[in-house]
Amino acid sequence: MVYIMKININKNYLNLKESYLFSDINKKVKAYKELNPNADIIRLGIGDVTRPLPKVISDAMSKASLDMSEKDTFKGYPPEFGYDFLRERIKSYYERYNVSLNLNDIFVSDGAKSDIGNLLDIFGNNTILIPDPVYPVYVDTNIMKNNNVIFINGNKENKFLPLPDDSLENKPYIIYICSPNNPTGAAYNYKELALWVSFAKKTGSLIIYDAAYEAFIQSSDIPHSIYEIEGGKDVAIEVCSFSKFAGFTGIRCGYTVVPSNIEVDGVYLNKLWGRRQSTKFNGVSYITQAGAYACLSDEGILECKKNLSYYMENAKLLKDFFLEKGLWFTGGISSPYIWLECPNGMSSWEFFQFLLEKCNVVGTPGAGFGKNGEGFFRITSFGTHEATKEAIERMKKVL
Amino acid sequence: MVYIMKININKNYLNLKESYLFSDINKKVKAYKELNPNADIIRLGIGDVTRPLPKVISDAMSKASLDMSEKDTFKGYPPEFGYDFLRERIKSYYERYNVSLNLNDIFVSDGAKSDIGNLLDIFGNNTILIPDPVYPVYVDTNIMKNNNVIFINGNKENKFLPLPDDSLENKPYIIYICSPNNPTGAAYNYKELALWVSFAKKTGSLIIYDAAYEAFIQSSDIPHSIYEIEGGKDVAIEVCSFSKFAGFTGIRCGYTVVPSNIEVDGVYLNKLWGRRQSTKFNGVSYITQAGAYACLSDEGILECKKNLSYYMENAKLLKDFFLEKGLWFTGGISSPYIWLECPNGMSSWEFFQFLLEKCNVVGTPGAGFGKNGEGFFRITSFGTHEATKEAIERMKKVL
Repeated sequence: MVYIMKININKNYLNLKESYLFSDINKKVKAYKELNPNADIIRLGIGDVTRPLPKVISDAMSKASLDMSEKDTFKGYPPEFGYDFLRERIKSYYERYNVSLNLNDIFVSDGAKSDIGNLLDIFGNNTILIPDPVYPVYVDTNIMKNNNVIFINGNKENKFLPLPDDSLENKPYIIYICSPNNPTGAAYNYKELALWVSFAKKTGSLIIYDAAYEAFIQSSDIPHSIYEIEGGKDVAIEVCSFSKFAGFTGIRCGYTVVPSNIEVDGVYLNKLWGRRQSTKFNGVSYITQAGAYACLSDEGILECKKNLSYYMENAKLLKDFFLEKGLWFTGGISSPYIWLECPNGMSSWEFFQFLLEKCNVVGTPGAGFGKNGEGFFRITSFGTHEATKEAIERMKKVL
Repeated sequence: MVYIMKININKNYLNLKESYLFSDINKKVKAYKELNPNADIIRLGIGDVTRPLPKVISDAMSKASLDMSEKDTFKGYPPEFGYDFLRERIKSYYERYNVSLNLNDIFVSDGAKSDIGNLLDIFGNNTILIPDPVYPVYVDTNIMKNNNVIFINGNKENKFLPLPDDSLENKPYIIYICSPNNPTGAAYNYKELALWVSFAKKTGSLIIYDAAYEAFIQSSDIPHSIYEIEGGKDVAIEVCSFSKFAGFTGIRCGYTVVPSNIEVDGVYLNKLWGRRQSTKFNGVSYITQAGAYACLSDEGILECKKNLSYYMENAKLLKDFFLEKGLWFTGGISSPYIWLECPNGMSSWEFFQFLLEKCNVVGTPGAGFGKNGEGFFRITSFGTHEATKEAIERMKKVL
């Protein structure tokens, strides 16, 4: 029986829109399958990795698991901000891109999504700049806090890489940047990202830089970290993850870098985040961290890159096909995502239905990522070679 | 160089008091060791487990680790609220205490501390009842939200088990109850806990029930879950953990039960927490959940109970010794903690220094857990048998 309680809830939650994107997709696929039970559906909508982990990583986690039942190697509470053995490796990883971090700037966590959500905890209300289309978590976490969100328009003209312009007031913002981007696959080059850093400096703003897809970068013109940009450490928190780089979506490990030199209201941002994490978080499993450590060994990096190459071969096949067909898209070069303009002026959902019915191929309607996503479509390279090739063969006949 | 940013921080963080409890303890121990380099210090202050995991659990995690590098058993993103295989086992575990849960009421997480911290996210500002002395996380997370905190006094008279009384206004509160308690080791019996449930019903309040130490309960008079109390499901969210039960402090797994029948402001609390978790959390590692699943197998429970018995043998030795000495204390029966009144009217820190100097034994001054902790001292049973016996021998000579 329903029981009614009288305490106050966070009423901002009532302003959240339910996202039906993936459930709507599943409903439509299900309805189609009921009418066409023999259809061989190929899913290119999936944003999750599919390649098994390199053996060097699973072996490390297996050993760490067994260590936990031995008296001499058992581990209790992990350090709240991560084992130094892992933080050292993350620091070394950044040195590949000539970025030098302090160990104390690195906070290991259970994933980028948690950190992106929890970061707002340390801030008061602010005006927020978020690109549209976008990963829905940026928007929803700000609605939960009743922040004023201003969308910056990604579109065909700016190749879905919006830059700061004169329409923005000269005042401090929290700015979300995801590059290489989910869902558009577009990535800022050095010069473009430097414009955002300089805008943040001019306005006293903070950039929350989501680098979850950095490992897919193939062009030397694209920065892996915002700290490669001069002044980046003055304006940006960087959130990164082992999810896509190492196939860790099921393992849960990420990290956030909060440079120790940033001061706000007389408080260091790094201390503030440390206080949040030590109060509301208790660190990451030793086993997980042993796995992440193995990812960042020489062998681990080599093996992870083989998996990334597998996905990027799919991306290349898709990209070459869309180029051949003269379709407009972003991504597919330094990203597992291809963001395709729907052909013949179709809407996102019309093209979804078209691909489903004509090719039995399922992708993600761009309209689900914001109003500027209408008329676009996300296709991913996380399938198998075989499925990707077959999907292309089928699309060849109708596009 | 320091860079000053202009965005707004959460100013409530400035009202947090730095806790120096454990760093002060370490400083004093270090200073003593410098003067007495040969002293053989025994630490009975530690709140972390020390027994290695049962083999059945580490084997399960080792196997799950290896599964992640096989094509057919690789797992991507886990379900956000936990794998059903684990939720089923948790549901069965509750059935031992005649509590029937819906699977959808169980949210698996990376630990009780995260959930306790994050739960406040779904609430607006409320008046909060927190016992004193207390686990500092309850207080700090409410300071971060600028909630009005009213302390309810635990003391020798109520055996550190405060009950609702007429001094409390008839209005809705969020009430924190931890039973068996950290730091006092005291546990509410059925009758006492029913008084809190009935107070919550009368006032429209919510109880956040921290059951992290339930597995230590040895008396049939003490409930393992607040849902054993009639009406408990109308008023309480229960947070629990594998940390102490299974020695999972280094593995990170807990769960929170939000009954699906509780409605606030026209919204189901269960949906609200689901929305929080699906937006700011991405589930728990498959390997961890495979380990937790093994904990709750018949063999796992048996093996975990052996470790708990080991600790409880220490508790019994300590308890019998303090009884023999005529000292007043709570805990040590259904809890790994003994909460001792300092002898001869000593303050918490005086007794700390006394034990350090006379016995080379380190415990935790009660004053660190709130003003009502002054004059009390926490001793834990998480050491080895040998160390615990030796500490008792030494204390025998001076107490």
